[in-house]
Amino acid sequence: MSALETFPNRHPHRDYTIVHACPEFTALCPKTGQPDFATIRITYVPDKLCVELKSLKLYLFGYRDRGIFYEHVTNVILDDLVRAVKPRSMTVEGEFNVRGGISSVVRASYAAPRRARRGER
Amino acid sequence: MSALETFPNRHPHRDYTIVHACPEFTALCPKTGQPDFATIRITYVPDKLCVELKSLKLYLFGYRDRGIFYEHVTNVILDDLVRAVKPRSMTVEGEFNVRGGISSVVRASYAAPRRARRGER
Amino acid sequence: MSALETFPNRHPHRDYTIVHACPEFTALCPKTGQPDFATIRITYVPDKLCVELKSLKLYLFGYRDRGIFYEHVTNVILDDLVRAVKPRSMTVEGEFNVRGGISSVVRASYAAPRRARRGER
Amino acid sequence: MSALETFPNRHPHRDYTIVHACPEFTALCPKTGQPDFATIRITYVPDKLCVELKSLKLYLFGYRDRGIFYEHVTNVILDDLVRAVKPRSMTVEGEFNVRGGISSVVRASYAAPRRARRGER
Amino acid sequence: MSALETFPNRHPHRDYTIVHACPEFTALCPKTGQPDFATIRITYVPDKLCVELKSLKLYLFGYRDRGIFYEHVTNVILDDLVRAVKPRSMTVEGEFNVRGGISSVVRASYAAPRRARRGER
Amino acid sequence: MSALETFPNRHPHRDYTIVHACPEFTALCPKTGQPDFATIRITYVPDKLCVELKSLKLYLFGYRDRGIFYEHVTNVILDDLVRAVKPRSMTVEGEFNVRGGISSVVRASYAAPRRARRGER
Amino acid sequence: MSALETFPNRHPHRDYTIVHACPEFTALCPKTGQPDFATIRITYVPDKLCVELKSLKLYLFGYRDRGIFYEHVTNVILDDLVRAVKPRSMTVEGEFNVRGGISSVVRASYAAPRRARRGER
Amino acid sequence: MSALETFPNRHPHRDYTIVHACPEFTALCPKTGQPDFATIRITYVPDKLCVELKSLKLYLFGYRDRGIFYEHVTNVILDDLVRAVKPRSMTVEGEFNVRGGISSVVRASYAAPRRARRGER
Amino acid sequence: MSALETFPNRHPHRDYTIVHACPEFTALCPKTGQPDFATIRITYVPDKLCVELKSLKLYLFGYRDRGIFYEHVTNVILDDLVRAVKPRSMTVEGEFNVRGGISSVVRASYAAPRRARRGER
Amino acid sequence: MSALETFPNRHPHRDYTIVHACPEFTALCPKTGQPDFATIRITYVPDKLCVELKSLKLYLFGYRDRGIFYEHVTNVILDDLVRAVKPRSMTVEGEFNVRGGISSVVRASYAAPRRARRGER
Repeated sequence: MSALETFPNRHPHRDYTIVHACPEFTALCPKTGQPDFATIRITYVPDKLCVELKSLKLYLFGYRDRGIFYEHVTNVILDDLVRAVKPRSMTVEGEFNVRGGISSVVRASYAAPRRARRGER
Repeated sequence: MSALETFPNRHPHRDYTIVHACPEFTALCPKTGQPDFATIRITYVPDKLCVELKSLKLYLFGYRDRGIFYEHVTNVILDDLVRAVKPRSMTVEGEFNVRGGISSVVRASYAAPRRARRGER
Repeated sequence: MSALETFPNRHPHRDYTIVHACPEFTALCPKTGQPDFATIRITYVPDKLCVELKSLKLYLFGYRDRGIFYEHVTNVILDDLVRAVKPRSMTVEGEFNVRGGISSVVRASYAAPRRARRGER
Repeated sequence: MSALETFPNRHPHRDYTIVHACPEFTALCPKTGQPDFATIRITYVPDKLCVELKSLKLYLFGYRDRGIFYEHVTNVILDDLVRAVKPRSMTVEGEFNVRGGISSVVRASYAAPRRARRGER
Repeated sequence: MSALETFPNRHPHRDYTIVHACPEFTALCPKTGQPDFATIRITYVPDKLCVELKSLKLYLFGYRDRGIFYEHVTNVILDDLVRAVKPRSMTVEGEFNVRGGISSVVRASYAAPRRARRGER
Repeated sequence: MSALETFPNRHPHRDYTIVHACPEFTALCPKTGQPDFATIRITYVPDKLCVELKSLKLYLFGYRDRGIFYEHVTNVILDDLVRAVKPRSMTVEGEFNVRGGISSVVRASYAAPRRARRGER
Repeated sequence: MSALETFPNRHPHRDYTIVHACPEFTALCPKTGQPDFATIRITYVPDKLCVELKSLKLYLFGYRDRGIFYEHVTNVILDDLVRAVKPRSMTVEGEFNVRGGISSVVRASYAAPRRARRGER
Repeated sequence: MSALETFPNRHPHRDYTIVHACPEFTALCPKTGQPDFATIRITYVPDKLCVELKSLKLYLFGYRDRGIFYEHVTNVILDDLVRAVKPRSMTVEGEFNVRGGISSVVRASYAAPRRARRGER
Repeated sequence: MSALETFPNRHPHRDYTIVHACPEFTALCPKTGQPDFATIRITYVPDKLCVELKSLKLYLFGYRDRGIFYEHVTNVILDDLVRAVKPRSMTVEGEFNVRGGISSVVRASYAAPRRARRGER
Repeated sequence: MSALETFPNRHPHRDYTIVHACPEFTALCPKTGQPDFATIRITYVPDKLCVELKSLKLYLFGYRDRGIFYEHVTNVILDDLVRAVKPRSMTVEGEFNVRGGISSVVRASYAAPRRARRGER
């Protein structure tokens, strides 16, 4: 997978929110090998680092040839982003296109342990 | 009815949310025998199991020839899914098409007893 | 007025929500005699009874020839439904079409006294 | 029925178009006696007369207690308006709400015989 | 299949258009046995007969247990309606829900031979 | 300004909500003399009085020739309505059209002192 | 009324289309004195002149205190603009807000006599 | 590339239209190697053959790893489909997602030589 | 201004349509110096050349610091593109944001002289 | 940068909310020099001062030629507005257009220290 890059948060004294939405996510179904399509939406409160947008794009494009389930991929993206960005809090949401007449959403969240956070709304 | 199948939740350490929406639900009105149409929306926080999508599709298609009321079918789907998936919490929502100039929504929820849940938002 | 009929709630152990929306409500303005048009939306948590859909339709159609104000009709529908269905809680909302360049919404709620309710979200 | 009134067209030298849309039309189903609801849309090129808006409203409200079929009422409104307004051309369109899972539109047109019209697009 | 019923067109001197839209059409896929869902939209200019709405509903519900392809069912509905209603012209359009990431529309038309029609726009 | 009229609230035993939305509000910019346009939305819980709809329309039309700023007019309408209707609570919201590429919303609220209110959600 | 100003069309060798849409038009009803609201949409092919935007705004604001009917005001705006701009062709469309449950559109067009036009699509 | 399969058209006596829309098309940009995303919409009048839906899905998925320009891929899909299905007429439309702030559509059509067609609207 | 670049059309035997839409166009008002914003939509049938997308983006960004009127800029973009791409036909449409309560659209077209075109729909 | 101007809040006894939305914000990407586009939405509760709308427009237009990152510009606008307006609370939200298939939102808030605020909802 392409590495997630970061840059320093210039406003760490303040809890503020960043949202990145990628409607062009695609991976493969591990059962059928057929492509799945989703919108991935990442919402986080940065601590010392912000995720660099181009590396995020390349990281998400790295799933194009991987077979991975809806529930798993959403949690893995959250784990990878938390590891790289060390945010105060983060939510990853995957909205997956209709398969067999059913559309799906998976939404997973992370909150840093208390002492790592300065102030919280 | 077709059996609901499950697969192991690979991220049980985390409370996260899964939504499946099926706009192609149909059953029969027990009074008139005429077809009813609905969107069934299932939202849950998995514990050790996730519902397998194809078996969910077949389970929902199993109502096609059954006569059953709006209020009842929504609660029965919730009961069946809770029994199969043993989630930390779950909501089933049925949005039923206009009949006699009136559209209807039925929404029922389940929450596991406290000790069964790890952490809750 | 046509009588509101009920049927037994088969899931009284659970607080769940039923919504009926009727976009075809019409009554008369008591001042001008001209027709008013509204969407009536009824949201309730049933206790031992559910409202029967066809009798609800006929009950609402019973206002067609009555002169009655927006604020009053919304509260009267709530009172009649509470009397017939004895719900754990109920909200009636009337969305009235533009008259004189102004559209109006009236929203009234009822909650059963505490001991009548089993569990509450 | 309330009479359709007219006022003189002050721009008869020009073919121009007037549209009136009434989303608050209601009549009764002649079979079941139950109310039907529709949007009536009238499009015409006036000749010497225009239809007066308030009398149009009252005329359409006159169907409130009449039992009449979709196909018939649309044609009758067209006939009545053509008789009263003597337009160069006119279309009446009725968009009827869902009944039995089916919504309906009826659209009927009239064009004055050639010598009655000045210029045509 | 349930028989299509008709009633006499009271305005045969005029070419006018009737549209019936049924968003609750469902049949079975002849390959997989799984349900297909579609909106069926029927547009026609009546000659001596109009299609009766309730019989149309029952006729369309008659496909619920039949295995039939998109392209075929749209043409068969057109053939059956033309046979029953003998319209001056008719179009049947089926809009089929997403299957395998692809949604489909099939649209077929009929026009009566010239001498059968009075006037045409 | 045209006087705001009221009528007695027939359901004072119950806290319920009334919303009036007027998308046809216009005043003048006190700097440029040019017209401003807004939607005014009034939400309140009545105590002993309700605002009469026609007098509200005339009151709002009274701003047509007055030069007044966005922030001020929203607060003045709230003050005038509170004085006339003596509600349990009230919010006035003005949504002003784009000027210089910027649209604006002003939202001001009033709550009666505690002892004036019976029950509150 | 404020005068309509023009500026020279720099591309008179080409038939091209200009549309100006003003959703903030208001005049008075000549019967009731109450305000009417409309969107005025002007579409034209310029010949030697284009209408200057600010003077158009002021011209349209000039109707704010005039009592004038829907059908008449649309034709008068067309006449005034044709006189000032001398276009190859022009359409004025007024979309008037709901009054008495009915919304209205008036659409009037002008085409210059043939020899005044260079090329036509 | 996966082969396009066909099945016999059971209604060749009639010109009718089939539309398949695939919002899940993705290929690679031949310049940057980055993924492109598009909706491919295929509209055709069948002659003796219809395109089989599953083979169409697999054919379109075959572009997932190919570098190809917008203008070219739309024309190539048209050429391949015309060769396989030999339709009376066909249009392929590609709607490509925003790149560099610009979205693009490419639309190419084919019409069989006259003698191959029976009747044409 | 940045030069418009082209690449060879690989399907010149066929009249097909390319649309590029740029919702991020901005220039300056020559009167006030204030920024104007528009969506520029370019629709053309290529002959031997297609416009290269990145050079188009840079060309349009070249207007960012230029003072130019709506009517003029739309025609100038058309002239520049026709000169660079020599299309069989082309339309440029500029949709300009609200200024003074009025939004504007300018739409200009070019068609190559007959002998330059192969076939035309 | 153009200076932010203020005017006195005439209703300081009341906590009320003002929202200004500017969909025409543009700056430059500090990496590529290419333009970025955003909607800036400012929500605040004024204390003694309100921001003057025209100076806000000019202030936001001042970013047109500056290279600045999404996360930074949103926080800088908040800092500048807090310094000029000294509000009881304020939120600045930037919604940035798609770049590389990803759209972004940045949302930062300020709340005055307790003793500076009178009452809070």
